Amino acid sequence: MSFAVILMGSKSDWSIMRECVLTLEKFRIPYEIHISSAHRSAHRTIEIIKDSESRGAKVFIGAAGMAAHLAGVIAAHTVKPVIAVPLTGGMLDGLDSLLSSVQMPKGIPVATMSVGKAGAINAGYFVAQLFSFLPQYSHLAQKLQEERENEAKKLLNDTELIQEEINQSINRINR
Amino acid sequence: MSFAVILMGSKSDWSIMRECVLTLEKFRIPYEIHISSAHRSAHRTIEIIKDSESRGAKVFIGAAGMAAHLAGVIAAHTVKPVIAVPLTGGMLDGLDSLLSSVQMPKGIPVATMSVGKAGAINAGYFVAQLFSFLPQYSHLAQKLQEERENEAKKLLNDTELIQEEINQSINRINR
Amino acid sequence: MSFAVILMGSKSDWSIMRECVLTLEKFRIPYEIHISSAHRSAHRTIEIIKDSESRGAKVFIGAAGMAAHLAGVIAAHTVKPVIAVPLTGGMLDGLDSLLSSVQMPKGIPVATMSVGKAGAINAGYFVAQLFSFLPQYSHLAQKLQEERENEAKKLLNDTELIQEEINQSINRINR
Amino acid sequence: MSFAVILMGSKSDWSIMRECVLTLEKFRIPYEIHISSAHRSAHRTIEIIKDSESRGAKVFIGAAGMAAHLAGVIAAHTVKPVIAVPLTGGMLDGLDSLLSSVQMPKGIPVATMSVGKAGAINAGYFVAQLFSFLPQYSHLAQKLQEERENEAKKLLNDTELIQEEINQSINRINR
Amino acid sequence: MSFAVILMGSKSDWSIMRECVLTLEKFRIPYEIHISSAHRSAHRTIEIIKDSESRGAKVFIGAAGMAAHLAGVIAAHTVKPVIAVPLTGGMLDGLDSLLSSVQMPKGIPVATMSVGKAGAINAGYFVAQLFSFLPQYSHLAQKLQEERENEAKKLLNDTELIQEEINQSINRINR
Amino acid sequence: MSFAVILMGSKSDWSIMRECVLTLEKFRIPYEIHISSAHRSAHRTIEIIKDSESRGAKVFIGAAGMAAHLAGVIAAHTVKPVIAVPLTGGMLDGLDSLLSSVQMPKGIPVATMSVGKAGAINAGYFVAQLFSFLPQYSHLAQKLQEERENEAKKLLNDTELIQEEINQSINRINR
Amino acid sequence: MSFAVILMGSKSDWSIMRECVLTLEKFRIPYEIHISSAHRSAHRTIEIIKDSESRGAKVFIGAAGMAAHLAGVIAAHTVKPVIAVPLTGGMLDGLDSLLSSVQMPKGIPVATMSVGKAGAINAGYFVAQLFSFLPQYSHLAQKLQEERENEAKKLLNDTELIQEEINQSINRINR
Amino acid sequence: MSFAVILMGSKSDWSIMRECVLTLEKFRIPYEIHISSAHRSAHRTIEIIKDSESRGAKVFIGAAGMAAHLAGVIAAHTVKPVIAVPLTGGMLDGLDSLLSSVQMPKGIPVATMSVGKAGAINAGYFVAQLFSFLPQYSHLAQKLQEERENEAKKLLNDTELIQEEINQSINRINR
Repeated sequence: MSFAVILMGSKSDWSIMRECVLTLEKFRIPYEIHISSAHRSAHRTIEIIKDSESRGAKVFIGAAGMAAHLAGVIAAHTVKPVIAVPLTGGMLDGLDSLLSSVQMPKGIPVATMSVGKAGAINAGYFVAQLFSFLPQYSHLAQKLQEERENEAKKLLNDTELIQEEINQSINRINR
Repeated sequence: MSFAVILMGSKSDWSIMRECVLTLEKFRIPYEIHISSAHRSAHRTIEIIKDSESRGAKVFIGAAGMAAHLAGVIAAHTVKPVIAVPLTGGMLDGLDSLLSSVQMPKGIPVATMSVGKAGAINAGYFVAQLFSFLPQYSHLAQKLQEERENEAKKLLNDTELIQEEINQSINRINR
Repeated sequence: MSFAVILMGSKSDWSIMRECVLTLEKFRIPYEIHISSAHRSAHRTIEIIKDSESRGAKVFIGAAGMAAHLAGVIAAHTVKPVIAVPLTGGMLDGLDSLLSSVQMPKGIPVATMSVGKAGAINAGYFVAQLFSFLPQYSHLAQKLQEERENEAKKLLNDTELIQEEINQSINRINR
Repeated sequence: MSFAVILMGSKSDWSIMRECVLTLEKFRIPYEIHISSAHRSAHRTIEIIKDSESRGAKVFIGAAGMAAHLAGVIAAHTVKPVIAVPLTGGMLDGLDSLLSSVQMPKGIPVATMSVGKAGAINAGYFVAQLFSFLPQYSHLAQKLQEERENEAKKLLNDTELIQEEINQSINRINR
Repeated sequence: MSFAVILMGSKSDWSIMRECVLTLEKFRIPYEIHISSAHRSAHRTIEIIKDSESRGAKVFIGAAGMAAHLAGVIAAHTVKPVIAVPLTGGMLDGLDSLLSSVQMPKGIPVATMSVGKAGAINAGYFVAQLFSFLPQYSHLAQKLQEERENEAKKLLNDTELIQEEINQSINRINR
Repeated sequence: MSFAVILMGSKSDWSIMRECVLTLEKFRIPYEIHISSAHRSAHRTIEIIKDSESRGAKVFIGAAGMAAHLAGVIAAHTVKPVIAVPLTGGMLDGLDSLLSSVQMPKGIPVATMSVGKAGAINAGYFVAQLFSFLPQYSHLAQKLQEERENEAKKLLNDTELIQEEINQSINRINR
Repeated sequence: MSFAVILMGSKSDWSIMRECVLTLEKFRIPYEIHISSAHRSAHRTIEIIKDSESRGAKVFIGAAGMAAHLAGVIAAHTVKPVIAVPLTGGMLDGLDSLLSSVQMPKGIPVATMSVGKAGAINAGYFVAQLFSFLPQYSHLAQKLQEERENEAKKLLNDTELIQEEINQSINRINR
Repeated sequence: MSFAVILMGSKSDWSIMRECVLTLEKFRIPYEIHISSAHRSAHRTIEIIKDSESRGAKVFIGAAGMAAHLAGVIAAHTVKPVIAVPLTGGMLDGLDSLLSSVQMPKGIPVATMSVGKAGAINAGYFVAQLFSFLPQYSHLAQKLQEERENEAKKLLNDTELIQEEINQSINRINR
């Protein structure tokens, strides 16, 4: 069975990565989740990569903050696609973990998402885009397109709400 | 036929993106390349996306500097995977285009690579990792693994060269 | 009829852009407001630009945070003046959206204001300065001058308040 | 007669602002140019503003580096539109002068362009967009549109050049 | 009579600059304080400088945030020493106003202090150091020295408090 | 007797450096602690270094924020290992004190830890690693190894907790 | 005799600080210059301060790069005014030494100038402004005013040169 | 036998790390050097750590640029002291590798030196300071002290050279 593997460097990252899990569930993509640090449990991190790959892991998501080495360490031990979700917590408020994730040497790519919740959600969307390459998940392309259109409709509704508010409250203030 | 599409914002980006093309050729992945700006040729950019998608485009690579909107604009018009290669040229020497590429809203992921040549090469490697999901390109997984092992051997050779240099030149200085 | 068009990337930007609307109302400049994202509703954004321009839109204000592509996308689809109000929310607290807005390629200017509320208000003032070029709005020049003088008087009043406070509280502390 | 006024803080800024002058000449917009610093010739700077305004100045462009106060000082002494072209030379390579230009208090907008040559050119384009509001310059809207389309065609030509280069040189390398 | 002049760009700066005033009062240095902005009340700012100088002003302190032009504008209109106290409020949290204050052109120095309260206090100390050059204030040198020694004694007391706390609480935890 | 010396620049640093003290106590490493500033009590700082060194001090830890000169000043007066714990409080939120600590001239190393609590704890761990070089503390190597393994086990437990939460709460949401 | 003391952290700083010396010579202000590092010759630095102060030193200028502690160390050992000239060479191209110089604790001001040559020259000008407080140097106020006016005249000449160039070269290009 | 181990991420780092080797040779400290990347040869990096430790390695130096994970990866696999030498090459010119090296999680310290050559040399000095803890290297403390004093003497000589230059060249210019 094809599935995605999420690794987080610490338990505190769970409040963010929950969003990634919810996105994968929305697209009904199977996944595994582990808390294992590039530094504090280096051996187990390597074991998780090897073991999950042998059982069908197709893509890895590494989420970490500060000296965010996790996604890079995963990419060093697999040639499967690796996605990084940089997290805040370091000195540059996530910019440090973004740079620590994205600046990989030639031949070892890490596909980096935005910092924090938006990045966690988009990691899930990106996995859905990748899984649509697999024959048994080809239906995901259409589902992604529908999501996109629903989102646009929501913005149209928001416009109407604000235009109404202007007609009521602002005009009142100015007259 | 499945193929990758590379879009660059300006002719001057070619010296960098040539590395991406060479990487795709190494893995024998078909590709198309266009110079089209998110701003200076906005309509044609959208046409290229729609047209290439109808002909089998599987993944897009957007390369741009400064207010690097290109990858984001591509992602706004497709639900296929989009990879960004941020380029230098702006005020923050590539950090600006990195942030302008990576900080996408929820639901519209852009998989961002490192700035400049390393990013251009890794965009090619990442496409190879994605294409290995497609039945006709499943052999790429093994090729990627071999590349990785060759690279490690090169570093071992480099070590020997330096150890030799130390034995000769440095010791001579100190004795 | 000549009017200004405000586009915001998301409903949450309204609390800031309300200040811009209030400024336009103070100068009795007609305006339209839309929530439409450069990424999440790319097609509608282009339609709004084309449609409003055909009905008399003279100037566009784009407000967005993070990878703030909105003003740039507007400028790519019109040769009317485009003003950007960068918003906070990204990794660099608005500096990212400022750079993403201001660093446009040659020939596609985006007149960028400060980040957040001061920028939203000044976008309104700048529209008033531009509208004073139009015969039917030439009276705005004098109104802008009066505003300026009132502001200077307020600072003089503030000085008196503080000098009084010093005479009372500080001297008491020191004696 | 309506005209634009360019102020530069030092003679060394001329190599950049020459691009702005060339852009104004392309659109046949009359202009005046002065070297006068916000600090080193503060009195004359104020005189230039007052005098040129009395003779028909419609818009001001302030170009300065480092603690780039020039555009802000101009905006403090006029209610006409003021455009800033931040220049490199300071500690943050132009980011300092960008922030020093853009972060104006409420009611005193400075429309800020990109740093350096692109900003100097775009200041000229933006003046053309503003002058198209004036009855005697309404023809500029069409000229701006033509420029835009020519630019898009150039990018199409660039694409062909690169595709040719690929067909020749790269394929040769790989076969 | 010799005295110092404090200029602040806005009423909200008073909570910080109050510390400067308290420091000047501690050293019994006469002072004047004005709220006047480099942009919002440009004319009055110049008048204050000229007028106070004619009445005996010896040194100026300019306190401002964001595009902090105030100290620079003062320095442009006097050859007396000018001290800047950069304030937070801009995009870079005071770094922008620091750079906007310190990066003056050759021949127009602005002696820049740290951002915020520490800078406001140190501006007062620095004025005391300068006033000790004047015959009638030569006693300030000794007073400054005494302050320094008292400060060192306080740190010694703090050490004792902490060592006591360690002996009590920490050791208890560890046994 | 061999011991470590902790110097802090101000009493307010104690809430952070308490973590360092607790770490040293965990490894039963003797220590001394002083509040003494590089600037506000410069003479006493030098005396503490000389005096403690004569009584057996083996390593120094300097903790300071803002223009964090303390560790550098210590390193200037001893050739024993000096460790810096940069603290927040300056304009760049600790990055300034990090750079002010780490950028030492050739021949005067300062071993710099991360900013804040993590750095304070790691300064303690690093002292334990250094003390394990001393014959009477050689047992520390094993204790450090055990700590490491316990930490890895904790992460495994955390994984189980989260997997359970997913089985319960998330699945419930999605069904 | 009253004189100024310049301290530089390394011989390589001389190419910059030469500008400061030339400025002091222009105003005929006596000075002493020493190369002595806050770290590499800590004892001698303190001796120079004490000794020169006993012989009439009125003001100190500290010039250093990287972890620029020199001005702060001087300020820690005197209550005379201390001026910092931050130099490039560190990771942030002078911004690091600027922050390391300016962010002093309460009660120990360091009057910071701009980075590099402009700062070195302005340190000289600022010393001239301070020396004008001393009866025997009161004539400096007038000399500073004359310098300022000459500078303004130079900018007027520069304007004429550029206007001439425009009349000749640019117009030729455009016709 | 006790020795130090230097690991570099790429052959190009050798020009910098040569300085570290020369420093170790100056203090006659045995060392081993390897080129092995945290990413490109992840397995061999771990083997080098384990193997060298079993043969007497006492301290590790990891030198890397960009997403500088090397020192962190070493620290994850040993409880011996680990020193990082961050290198330039990334987007923030070394600041990125500094932050990627220093921001380690609790319990896994990495003692970080300055970026580039100064850091490479100081890593060597710091190893000398650590080795002075070992009975057979206790003589290093005195050698370090002598080095320090020689360095101070060099600065005194530099002062004399510059004072001579001033007496000759500058005075000539001014008279």
